[in-house]
Amino acid sequence: MNGAQALIRTLASLGVEVCFTNPGTSEMHFVAALDAVPELRAVLALFEGVATGAADGYARISGKPAATLLHLGPGLGNGIANLHNAKKAHTPMINVIGEHATYHRAYNPPLSLDIAGVAGSVSKFVRTSEKLAELVDDTVAAYRAAVMRPCGVATIIVPADLTWSEGIDSISPVSTTSPNQESTPRETDADLRLRAAAAALRGGDSCTLFLGGSALTKAGLVAASRLANAFGAKMLCESFPAVLHRGAGIPPIDRLAYLGEYAMMQLGGTKRLILVGAEDPVAFFAYPSKPSRYAPEDAEVMVLAGLDEDSEAILEQLVELLGVGGIEPTLQAALRPALPSGPLTGSAVAAAIGALLPEGAIVSDESITVGVMAPAATAGAPAHRWLTLTGGAIGQGMPLATGAAIASPGSKVVNIQADGSAMYTIQSLWTQAREKLDVTTVILNNKSYAILEMELDRVGAEPGGPRARSMLQLFPPQIDFASVSRGFGVPGVTVTSGEELVAQLQHAFAEPGPHLIEAILPQGIS
Amino acid sequence: MNGAQALIRTLASLGVEVCFTNPGTSEMHFVAALDAVPELRAVLALFEGVATGAADGYARISGKPAATLLHLGPGLGNGIANLHNAKKAHTPMINVIGEHATYHRAYNPPLSLDIAGVAGSVSKFVRTSEKLAELVDDTVAAYRAAVMRPCGVATIIVPADLTWSEGIDSISPVSTTSPNQESTPRETDADLRLRAAAAALRGGDSCTLFLGGSALTKAGLVAASRLANAFGAKMLCESFPAVLHRGAGIPPIDRLAYLGEYAMMQLGGTKRLILVGAEDPVAFFAYPSKPSRYAPEDAEVMVLAGLDEDSEAILEQLVELLGVGGIEPTLQAALRPALPSGPLTGSAVAAAIGALLPEGAIVSDESITVGVMAPAATAGAPAHRWLTLTGGAIGQGMPLATGAAIASPGSKVVNIQADGSAMYTIQSLWTQAREKLDVTTVILNNKSYAILEMELDRVGAEPGGPRARSMLQLFPPQIDFASVSRGFGVPGVTVTSGEELVAQLQHAFAEPGPHLIEAILPQGIS
Repeated sequence: MNGAQALIRTLASLGVEVCFTNPGTSEMHFVAALDAVPELRAVLALFEGVATGAADGYARISGKPAATLLHLGPGLGNGIANLHNAKKAHTPMINVIGEHATYHRAYNPPLSLDIAGVAGSVSKFVRTSEKLAELVDDTVAAYRAAVMRPCGVATIIVPADLTWSEGIDSISPVSTTSPNQESTPRETDADLRLRAAAAALRGGDSCTLFLGGSALTKAGLVAASRLANAFGAKMLCESFPAVLHRGAGIPPIDRLAYLGEYAMMQLGGTKRLILVGAEDPVAFFAYPSKPSRYAPEDAEVMVLAGLDEDSEAILEQLVELLGVGGIEPTLQAALRPALPSGPLTGSAVAAAIGALLPEGAIVSDESITVGVMAPAATAGAPAHRWLTLTGGAIGQGMPLATGAAIASPGSKVVNIQADGSAMYTIQSLWTQAREKLDVTTVILNNKSYAILEMELDRVGAEPGGPRARSMLQLFPPQIDFASVSRGFGVPGVTVTSGEELVAQLQHAFAEPGPHLIEAILPQGIS
Repeated sequence: MNGAQALIRTLASLGVEVCFTNPGTSEMHFVAALDAVPELRAVLALFEGVATGAADGYARISGKPAATLLHLGPGLGNGIANLHNAKKAHTPMINVIGEHATYHRAYNPPLSLDIAGVAGSVSKFVRTSEKLAELVDDTVAAYRAAVMRPCGVATIIVPADLTWSEGIDSISPVSTTSPNQESTPRETDADLRLRAAAAALRGGDSCTLFLGGSALTKAGLVAASRLANAFGAKMLCESFPAVLHRGAGIPPIDRLAYLGEYAMMQLGGTKRLILVGAEDPVAFFAYPSKPSRYAPEDAEVMVLAGLDEDSEAILEQLVELLGVGGIEPTLQAALRPALPSGPLTGSAVAAAIGALLPEGAIVSDESITVGVMAPAATAGAPAHRWLTLTGGAIGQGMPLATGAAIASPGSKVVNIQADGSAMYTIQSLWTQAREKLDVTTVILNNKSYAILEMELDRVGAEPGGPRARSMLQLFPPQIDFASVSRGFGVPGVTVTSGEELVAQLQHAFAEPGPHLIEAILPQGIS
């Protein structure tokens, strides 16, 4: 078989089931090989940022890495923003990027670009395969790097002549560990850290358990809640978790606020900040005369579980060590807000989603300012998973929803989506239509980059004049998202009242396949 | 004044008139400063690839660099593909990229990414400004790098605390040379090269003048045509020129074909390949058993004018040296194709554009396969400029048209746009609507990545099965570009016959402002 066939068969043998693609000429042999390897499902995206974001969403929900197929340096460039988000989410992913033939690179053809250099900014592993004989090993190495904790983005760059060269006889069944099963050995101090955390909690000295990553499963939250209840500790989670399990029957946890003023209040009084799969929280941006770190300066920061460890298991070990397995965790009561009526506001949209969110739903939340009410309104909805914008590179919500729906065909995926952010990867809708994905997108059309209207003040800039303000306004012309959506093959409707929104959400949740509901809101922050 | 104000005033003092923006929190002080510097026009884009492509289009038409304002590493990433195209077009451009505050970078906040590393892949100049006192000098250095031949992309990375820090008293009027006026001194061998080319032409030994860059002005083409006519030389130009002046009254020149089979025929028999602002032509991609270089192996390659020189002037010097200023150049006769009728094909679309193209039009050509007839059909249209996809990173046509229209408000801009490529930067339409730009976009909807259907065969891959073929097809669902266009605020219509297309083109050319005409074509290559 040729190199392309060998690579695809290797991925399939490793258990990779989906490849999000946006190929070009240098990847044609991969495309040609798809029919021979039906175990690998190819999902076409119209833009690389959709492919990389979808691979992120797929892995967050399935726990397994997807592959992407990208076209040379520019294709990688188009995918960088969502690869950055995936990196920050510690998402396992394998990028397969086509490159010019080994002998052709020296001619500096028009599409030449330093692929490895650019990929390095978002990848934990980058390798350019230089020999056919090493292509299978390189692919296995990329896979192993992707799934070794802390998981991340692995990139393999494949010159076209390797894809078309014949000479690989067979792929031996690849023996590999499962995703997340491997980690760098840290046993040396794991026990010490466990005992230090135990002592801190027993000391009762204003401890805050700060959770992230794999601590945010139901089991992890139950263990954390037992610890919090037994020792009067506080629980908080990172501002932008990759996946947060929440809803009725699951211990509730507040996310650290995006706004530093609130985040510092949440952490105020903490004497010991116990990190569990999360990093010491820092400000998203710097602001004049505001601190970069959020924890009180006198708080001791203790790592209980690093990003390269199984936080859920370590929390359970701590429960056992402290003998608090009999303590009841706090479980979220089932509770739904009333259905909204009248003119739409951010609160009304949040209430509608909270009132109707289906059991087992997956929420892709890129709601930015308008969505600030959404977590509270959905807190007591049936159990669901909540995916957030981990790296701050906007344009993630729609691709993430797309990949999550591929990973979990039985779940309703709800994408709460800000208007400005939607514009970076709006092409996601076409893939949702093509694959008949069960995604309901709620566009929050407030006709502005409302967060920037707020940030313009927060960074201490002069009051913006009309030219400055116009840079933050998404009108004129007002975007008609329903029309755009229909253009991509997804039924799109526009709603302006709570009653209309409720009716359209009920319709979308009852009917399989993608839907887009554009909620027209007051301009700016509401 | 603060750093942001100083930087913007410096750009304005250097003659930079337009900034294409997609700002975020770290760029808010730049936004706040816009009202105080009305000389710098800010044009908002919904996606960074639109901003960078528009800056490219602006500079190709105006001859002056525009600035871009991009948000951190992910914003740069989204702009990379069109920066790559600008790099290959040798377009002067200054990227201003916000970065976290100097003291905040150490905390590895969520949006951290190696901006300089990524920018280096597409920039001839990258500098992170580390001190307020150096910000103005850094800005001037970036400008000078951008406009020094060979022109290119200069990137200045500005930490947020520099933008908000006060302490710059005044910007002294910056003394600088005009764009393109400076070049690395090469006088040492310029005369030698001139005389060698003269000798080659006089020798009459199957010379081909291979033109690119600044040789493709009317004056450059007139000089080349005199040389060709005097000495029986052949004229060809690079496959994907940044700007080609053409049409009635201008010497016609064939572009080197994209397909190697044809390119090698065009260059066949050449004994001396004289490069004038162009590089030795190579294959866009490698193909099994096909050569990477296109010129005959026994042809001598001679550089008459390098990319860092004024090719137009050097051609005129050669005319003078050879005393052929009295030789008549071949000028294109005025000639229009007949108006098409009946079912639409690629030829019919090309004929309609050729029949109706207004005098002084600017054509942004990202027509890929369907547009193969467009150059011939427009060859005898009134004088116009033709912009092409210089770097092969698709998604350039619509932003380029946007920027060209900003640069030349009096010209009709016609964007001949393939459907698949349109999907990378479709958000351009919104900026066209917002700025009321005189752009007519003709979408060639053949429901496929038709070039890849061809390339799949050309790279010698196995005949694609249904899964492979589906990766190259843009249906189902069929994209409704007219609906998408209306969603972005640009009137959009769909046409299916020559008569309808003609009527809509006549309407669009008669009415100011943006229009989109979606031409429905047979599926695939037609």
